[in-house]
Amino acid sequence: MTDDLTPEIHPLLLCGGSGTRLWPLSRKSYPKQFARLTGEESLFQASARRLSGPGFAAPMAITGSDFRFIVTEQLAAVEIAPAAILIEPEGRNTAPAILAAALALEARAPGALMLVAPADHVIPDAARFRDVVQAAAPAAHAGRIVTFGIRPDRAETGYGWLELTDAPDADFSPVPQDLKGFVEKPDDATARAMLEGGQHLWNAGIFLMSSATLIAAFETHAPEMLAGTRAAVDGAERDLGFTRLAPDPWAALDDISIDYAVMEKSDNLTVVPYGGAWSDLGGWDAVWRDSGPDTAGVVTAGPSTALDCENTLLRAESEAQELVGIGLSDVIAVAMPDAVLVAHKDRAQDVKQAVAALKAKGVPQAETLPRDYRPWGWYESLVVGERFQVKRIHVTPGAALSLQSHHHRSEHWIVVEGTAKVTVDETVQLVTENQSVYIPLGAVHRMENPGKVPMVLIEVQTGAYLGEDDIIRYEDVYARGQGAKG
Amino acid sequence: MTDDLTPEIHPLLLCGGSGTRLWPLSRKSYPKQFARLTGEESLFQASARRLSGPGFAAPMAITGSDFRFIVTEQLAAVEIAPAAILIEPEGRNTAPAILAAALALEARAPGALMLVAPADHVIPDAARFRDVVQAAAPAAHAGRIVTFGIRPDRAETGYGWLELTDAPDADFSPVPQDLKGFVEKPDDATARAMLEGGQHLWNAGIFLMSSATLIAAFETHAPEMLAGTRAAVDGAERDLGFTRLAPDPWAALDDISIDYAVMEKSDNLTVVPYGGAWSDLGGWDAVWRDSGPDTAGVVTAGPSTALDCENTLLRAESEAQELVGIGLSDVIAVAMPDAVLVAHKDRAQDVKQAVAALKAKGVPQAETLPRDYRPWGWYESLVVGERFQVKRIHVTPGAALSLQSHHHRSEHWIVVEGTAKVTVDETVQLVTENQSVYIPLGAVHRMENPGKVPMVLIEVQTGAYLGEDDIIRYEDVYARGQGAKG
Repeated sequence: MTDDLTPEIHPLLLCGGSGTRLWPLSRKSYPKQFARLTGEESLFQASARRLSGPGFAAPMAITGSDFRFIVTEQLAAVEIAPAAILIEPEGRNTAPAILAAALALEARAPGALMLVAPADHVIPDAARFRDVVQAAAPAAHAGRIVTFGIRPDRAETGYGWLELTDAPDADFSPVPQDLKGFVEKPDDATARAMLEGGQHLWNAGIFLMSSATLIAAFETHAPEMLAGTRAAVDGAERDLGFTRLAPDPWAALDDISIDYAVMEKSDNLTVVPYGGAWSDLGGWDAVWRDSGPDTAGVVTAGPSTALDCENTLLRAESEAQELVGIGLSDVIAVAMPDAVLVAHKDRAQDVKQAVAALKAKGVPQAETLPRDYRPWGWYESLVVGERFQVKRIHVTPGAALSLQSHHHRSEHWIVVEGTAKVTVDETVQLVTENQSVYIPLGAVHRMENPGKVPMVLIEVQTGAYLGEDDIIRYEDVYARGQGAKG
Repeated sequence: MTDDLTPEIHPLLLCGGSGTRLWPLSRKSYPKQFARLTGEESLFQASARRLSGPGFAAPMAITGSDFRFIVTEQLAAVEIAPAAILIEPEGRNTAPAILAAALALEARAPGALMLVAPADHVIPDAARFRDVVQAAAPAAHAGRIVTFGIRPDRAETGYGWLELTDAPDADFSPVPQDLKGFVEKPDDATARAMLEGGQHLWNAGIFLMSSATLIAAFETHAPEMLAGTRAAVDGAERDLGFTRLAPDPWAALDDISIDYAVMEKSDNLTVVPYGGAWSDLGGWDAVWRDSGPDTAGVVTAGPSTALDCENTLLRAESEAQELVGIGLSDVIAVAMPDAVLVAHKDRAQDVKQAVAALKAKGVPQAETLPRDYRPWGWYESLVVGERFQVKRIHVTPGAALSLQSHHHRSEHWIVVEGTAKVTVDETVQLVTENQSVYIPLGAVHRMENPGKVPMVLIEVQTGAYLGEDDIIRYEDVYARGQGAKG
């Protein structure tokens, strides 16, 4: 469907969301698009790879500041070099995010086509999906906004639907047709009627159009948002390869979806049907459904064992934790070393409320994972005592922590993998596997990984106060401030 | 009920069992009697305290070799000095264990009364129970074997029952009467009839008699077992305050219960009714029942949150792990950092099979806990890598590990609490909080806690092989062999 004459399509990976419906796997600090939900790759990585190859330009991504290093690390792991990574100063829903990307793309490649792709969907048949996207390109070049309609397989009341004039053919060929209208999340009867009628498809929020077309739509339907977003893009700062949108105009933008801001008001919408499998993994019930339950309806993942269960999902997320289910019906159980969810399958959508309840109680597991991702790699706390803490610290090749000191703790570092370059006051030394260094209280120190393989270090802290905010930064290649986390 | 003229009753705490029905909390390496199931004390500790005070002599305990230091540590923690701790070379059910204790007691205090008390029962009203035991003493002195009959509150098919001639009075006064007979685990209809009839009580396996009476009963009904057990007692070795029964005669003994070996054949049985609450916590359903469910039937323990649940038990055993239940009915969920059980409440008795299935798969969580109890304290593995392992080691005051060396690993020790006395080859030094020592591969070393408070140390091991069996022992105060665990 693509040839050398077809200009490339620029994917925009939307990866700033932080949904909680897949808690405890998905947390605010590490949301579902970055988690390995269905295989070896994260949903974000699978999305990036799905939209690469002939006919596709290097992707853009838009995300929050907390996730920027996860984005670069995960793209590097699948060997995809992004064209741009835009940083939203705060989440403002999809309308400002997509518009900002369109403005940035229009400045770089006027008239280019942009594919808006949520990075947390599952679309197993990547080749078919790419073909369908390419089939939509002529309409997009002709000034249409193309939305992709997913073939429904159930009367889902949790999605918006798209109304067509004509039902797609039996093969679900990607033939563009004018969109008749949007249907908001329907009631059960309406959803059943739409499923039977065959002239309604699911709205997956995937769009293809030229950046110019989209900007024009905003000009017509949301001119204030266009002005504000343009100011945020024009005022953006470049920082270590990231494009940080300017915070002040950004904060004033409406927090609304692209559907509501422009799509539902535009009269130049086209639908291209997509007949392959698709899921937004919008809850654990969807994960269960999309994981291929056995004849008893059971799905197990990780070290889990189901005895006499039916219609049940058992997921053990850590190899170090065994999960056993006995005699369960319609239960979802997701086990992690620091948090466990057990829910009736019909209550999967209430996980959100449970997380809100935990957050209200001040439970850290509501939002954060034991493993904390940083620009230079990650760390996790192994044990916390009254006056000590043990951490495992993983530093990626070439990375460096800030030059820092602490008022209240001293640290023992033991390198267990790779080689560290360690600065303690005036001394710089290489420390390799099975060697240790002592950092006295108050000493100015830094840890770097000068090597080609990851460096892993065990840090034993002792002191009366062990909070992450006991830190004085003297130098930081990642431009973080005093007292900000390491 | 007791006065200075009443000779003391010698409790025998049976604590060698290793049931799996309360997995994952109860494991072969640390069974339920030692776990904190219902409060701050373990069931074993509560049993020992229940049978102490006026009228009771220092207790005996009989247990397996693996549990001997747990027994001493837990008794010390409740400030009870045992009269004797007998070690079974292997588990042979209750008949040989109780007989061995009777023989040991008869040698020490001829004619003394012995109270056989399983150490894994819950009996909340300790004062009432003590009074009832003392009320049974005259009958026991008169040569009767007294069994205590528990007031049934449901038609339980999982227990044996005791048949009485006359129903107990309304107050369940502890009036002895002759036992009419034993009823094996009944079917549902029989159990219901017994519950309604009022002349049957539960058989809890609690007995009071003189050691001479019991020995005579074995002489009549199981003379071979008496001869073998006597040989095991006569050949016992004293070892660090433990009485290790001789393994060879012991191994030849029948693996049968005291009920089957002698009680059901004896004609000198008396029943004393006990009207207070009692539970054997024979499964998670019993734990749920005995934990005082709220009006919705929900029990939560530890950091757990129940949303819209009913008749459900949620137990989070670690403060570091959050458990959330949503919309559950009749579910038992028990979460530990290394293992999670989720079962339908009616299937609580099948936990046993699930553990057997895990064991067959070679899953270590089937039988062992992350925390490993040793004569000198305990350790737990915090993280295991390809070529490194981090452990937290807790050494009780006055204790010492063996003098040892390793072929394949070196170790970094960082003391984080208390003070260690560390031997490395020819050097002996005191190492205190925030100090570290390096143990090179091959060095002969030992760690001791010479202080008055626990010593906690973080050990970082590096090497190509990190198994517990890479150990050469030069000296061991606990008489363990080469290659045996540290």
